[in-house]
Amino acid sequence: MRRISGAVRLVGGVALAVLAGTALAAAQDARAAIEAVNKEFMAAVIRGDAAGLAALYTTTAQALPQGGDFAKGPAAIRAVMQGALDAGIKQLVLTTLEVETHGDTAHEVGAFTAKGKDGAVLDQGKYVVVWKKEGGRWKLHRDIWNSSQPPKQ
Amino acid sequence: MRRISGAVRLVGGVALAVLAGTALAAAQDARAAIEAVNKEFMAAVIRGDAAGLAALYTTTAQALPQGGDFAKGPAAIRAVMQGALDAGIKQLVLTTLEVETHGDTAHEVGAFTAKGKDGAVLDQGKYVVVWKKEGGRWKLHRDIWNSSQPPKQ
Repeated sequence: MRRISGAVRLVGGVALAVLAGTALAAAQDARAAIEAVNKEFMAAVIRGDAAGLAALYTTTAQALPQGGDFAKGPAAIRAVMQGALDAGIKQLVLTTLEVETHGDTAHEVGAFTAKGKDGAVLDQGKYVVVWKKEGGRWKLHRDIWNSSQPPKQ
Repeated sequence: MRRISGAVRLVGGVALAVLAGTALAAAQDARAAIEAVNKEFMAAVIRGDAAGLAALYTTTAQALPQGGDFAKGPAAIRAVMQGALDAGIKQLVLTTLEVETHGDTAHEVGAFTAKGKDGAVLDQGKYVVVWKKEGGRWKLHRDIWNSSQPPKQ
């Protein structure tokens, strides 16, 4: 009996370890996938491609830009992105600091540096993105950021 | 056979409906609990109680203030809150727009108005909070906000 219950415990333990391993692998996959989308985001900024940026968001996404109101949906988000490009942003460096996954939803905490002509740093700050899997791809669903630089007086 | 499978389907449907109802009730409970904590947050601002504000965050929380760096942990968050109070904020109105729950984690999207002496509006903006249940209570875990007002030139 002890041997059997020991075996059951062992099998149960292995099953739990496999489940935990699967969950860990899924979380690592999500982080890798999200970082890959961020690379696409950075590439689209370099191209000056506001439509390409907007395409990385879900169809019901909201961007929450500093200095402006909620931008809801692809057209409004594209306009926010165009505004940032028009303001002189030539490069955006995104650094993922944390990704936590809950099924088809994840949240990311990260830091950004916005650069202008000749690599001049225009702004540095941080962001939180709620990601959703839509059509099998991770997409930005809620996107808020702010500057870490003190405001102009 | 058809009748039996129909009965099974019916029982399955009822079970699913009960499960869906339970999930919905849990989500509504989480939203209500989070809005209750926001009421405590607003009350602590009116008291000018930075320690009381910091106590509403998890022990591993991060605040991501506009115009400053990440504030990690209770002491750093308390300092950020004290800074906001010292800057003249007498009242903060928080309006929850969205809460989405995933087990013991939730994210909230909301809007804020910061008021100074005599109810003068100092700032208006929006925020995203990742909430975690810690010790049976919903607490702020990641908290980022920004102003919707255009920057000073």
